[in-house]
Amino acid sequence: MSDQTTELQTETEDDAYVLGPKAIAAILYAVDIEDQAKLTELMEPLHAADIADLLEQINAFDRSRLVRLYDREFDGEILSELDEAIREEVIAVLTPQVLTQAVRDMDSDDVVDLVEDLEDDQQEAILDALEDVDRAAVEQALGYPEYSAGRLMQREVVMAPEHWTVGEAIDYLRSTPEEELPDQFYHIVIVDPRLHPVGNVTLGKLMRSKRETRLMDLLEETFQIIPVLQDESDVAYAFNQYHLISAPVVDDEGRLIGVITIDDAMAVLDEEHEEDILRLAGVGEGSLSDRVIDTTKQRFPWLAVNLVTAIAASLVIAQFEAALAQIVALAVLMPIVASMGGNAGTQSLTVAVRAIATKDLTGANVWRVIRREVLVGLINGMIFAVIMGIVGLIWFGSPALGYVIATAMVINLVVAGLAGTVIPVVLDRAGVDPALASGAFVTTVTDVVGFFAFLGLAAAVLL
Amino acid sequence: MSDQTTELQTETEDDAYVLGPKAIAAILYAVDIEDQAKLTELMEPLHAADIADLLEQINAFDRSRLVRLYDREFDGEILSELDEAIREEVIAVLTPQVLTQAVRDMDSDDVVDLVEDLEDDQQEAILDALEDVDRAAVEQALGYPEYSAGRLMQREVVMAPEHWTVGEAIDYLRSTPEEELPDQFYHIVIVDPRLHPVGNVTLGKLMRSKRETRLMDLLEETFQIIPVLQDESDVAYAFNQYHLISAPVVDDEGRLIGVITIDDAMAVLDEEHEEDILRLAGVGEGSLSDRVIDTTKQRFPWLAVNLVTAIAASLVIAQFEAALAQIVALAVLMPIVASMGGNAGTQSLTVAVRAIATKDLTGANVWRVIRREVLVGLINGMIFAVIMGIVGLIWFGSPALGYVIATAMVINLVVAGLAGTVIPVVLDRAGVDPALASGAFVTTVTDVVGFFAFLGLAAAVLL
Repeated sequence: MSDQTTELQTETEDDAYVLGPKAIAAILYAVDIEDQAKLTELMEPLHAADIADLLEQINAFDRSRLVRLYDREFDGEILSELDEAIREEVIAVLTPQVLTQAVRDMDSDDVVDLVEDLEDDQQEAILDALEDVDRAAVEQALGYPEYSAGRLMQREVVMAPEHWTVGEAIDYLRSTPEEELPDQFYHIVIVDPRLHPVGNVTLGKLMRSKRETRLMDLLEETFQIIPVLQDESDVAYAFNQYHLISAPVVDDEGRLIGVITIDDAMAVLDEEHEEDILRLAGVGEGSLSDRVIDTTKQRFPWLAVNLVTAIAASLVIAQFEAALAQIVALAVLMPIVASMGGNAGTQSLTVAVRAIATKDLTGANVWRVIRREVLVGLINGMIFAVIMGIVGLIWFGSPALGYVIATAMVINLVVAGLAGTVIPVVLDRAGVDPALASGAFVTTVTDVVGFFAFLGLAAAVLL
Repeated sequence: MSDQTTELQTETEDDAYVLGPKAIAAILYAVDIEDQAKLTELMEPLHAADIADLLEQINAFDRSRLVRLYDREFDGEILSELDEAIREEVIAVLTPQVLTQAVRDMDSDDVVDLVEDLEDDQQEAILDALEDVDRAAVEQALGYPEYSAGRLMQREVVMAPEHWTVGEAIDYLRSTPEEELPDQFYHIVIVDPRLHPVGNVTLGKLMRSKRETRLMDLLEETFQIIPVLQDESDVAYAFNQYHLISAPVVDDEGRLIGVITIDDAMAVLDEEHEEDILRLAGVGEGSLSDRVIDTTKQRFPWLAVNLVTAIAASLVIAQFEAALAQIVALAVLMPIVASMGGNAGTQSLTVAVRAIATKDLTGANVWRVIRREVLVGLINGMIFAVIMGIVGLIWFGSPALGYVIATAMVINLVVAGLAGTVIPVVLDRAGVDPALASGAFVTTVTDVVGFFAFLGLAAAVLL
């Protein structure tokens, strides 16, 4: 790939790495006039990941025409970069021969990544396309649980025994046939006689050292071993925390069975974050490429939960119908207290969910964090109490109403800080993803407390 | 570092990489009895990143005692792993000699990372501790804008001219003194006579090839050049999109001046995500280590914006005082419509903000995405309209009230889909970070439309 890529992609500084509208128009025109040569020429400088993005952004009709015309050039890398929904659509369009060729060129961990989310019949078609030894490797990886280190690792590992010298390692690397080595590797894993990994040596050190130097004298300082069943989010955490470039994966007897590299860990970190953001917003697993009906289904349950929450809040309001009937100002002001509580609760909640994910909120500091959030709620509550007390007084000319809304504000912001921290911590300890469920609970608490405090105080003070 | 780390850290499967309560208690006990030898022994197996996490999680009193007792062992890596607020506190406790020693051992890009957020006097103290040549390198890096590739890159690059063979490259690597090479490197950058990078060769390929092979015949397929002023978020995007391990950085004349490696890009990706999540929740730049007063200040502006939004919604409600005074059921039901709209709007908004960040929402598909979100809002709106229509009918025995709330629900969910997509797109085009500002706008729209549609329809139909 050459500099051309950069030129084609970046038409303005602002949109680095976005394929410009002119480039897309040229490609779609080539598809329109069915000019295969022109299409191939336009697509040639593009990276597989950019082709995948292009396919995701055009409509289904253009997409299927483009894939058909590009057919013979289509490779496995484009497939693995595609969004799940679009990937199934594209695989259905590709001819069996092209599909076979595409997957045969891929590393086994990439094939795993490609097939693990496919429907059974498409998965079968791709596995059938593989040679026996590759198929066995892919099936073995699929035997590990989803989202485990076993699914992430590549099985091709460069290893050397403890007693080897630099010279022996270099000779071994030079004499091993290309297909037995990983596509890219940066370390040699040193193993003891039971195949337990004892350390890493970087290729840079290997290359710069004398042939007679012992590998054991060149070990890197930072070295982490990943158990094959470890959750992929913990794998990503370890890479980020310890600045790892690659890490050996071991089975439950501690024997080396694969290696995970940082590029895969980075992709997992990216997905985990994405998932957290979407879950916090109640979107589930959505992507822009999903069909309208799928997106509607994904969002429905979250809205349904919110409806229950909202009805619960309404039931609280209904207890105070008498007060509302007498003082209509209460109906005007009551959403303010609930809304401020909901926002403050979301703030505390988001910080807590993130801190749990980054392992910054632990048993060692949970009480201090809760106390801190409550204090922040108290201080901001008092400030907004004063502001709203004045607004209430001026707007409706009633000091008592100002006092009621001010007090309710303090109560609700303190409760928001408390609920926003305690709820995700409790959910996490109970084994529930706090990003997934905390929002609904926290909002229920702040809505109910907000309406109850405001209307209850109003009923007591004003009637 | 050895396997010990893993044992000490992971007391249960669930809490991989979290320092257990027993380990923390032992360390704090050593601090209590001022047993320096024991403390050093307990801390020895810990990675700098874990020591930093430990310091962040204990209270300020224990922290300053621990740092004082650990003093001589304290290294620069721990400092760079620390949260900003805690870092300043720790630097203030360290003796100048320890600080000098700590920063002299660090790579120039790590020193940049360490000092860029410090107060001026602390920054000066650390720069003074550096040797002249390192100081110059750090100051030059600080000359590039914050969050640019120039701040991320390391200046030590391994490069070779186009005409070199594998043998020449290996001999060069073996004869270059250790301190002129980066700590870790995985590629050799090939440059033309004007120092423009033309490609990468991996050390693995170099090592496995014959001495007489030309480097130009070993170039990697994927190769991206990073302009020194490029925003670090685009750098992280490029690494993730193109699966880069390292990438050369060029000045505005295209000359090679540094290199960025994937571990730094991964750290940026992590920070960018964190920032997006916190901004979407209206938390700004918060961290658990900030003081209560700082956190209160960070959260205040967002709550203030929300207060304005809430008051705007209240002003809408106030227009319908007559209707509310006559039919108290309206006050009970009205928060439901607003709340459902707010949630649906947040769903659309979050998907749009993420799609903009990942460059999946572009000029090429923006209209299709908007149409899609509106359709999803329409379908879910109709489903919840039926549900709420029935609830309203049963609860208050009024078919007209059921009709009013059902119609308002459809209107608000359609508007939520529209506003949740259009607002972030427009903010992005205007150069405002959509994660930062969209939430307040979208909630204002859904609150105002929700109350207006429900109360307005009620006033028209029921009075």
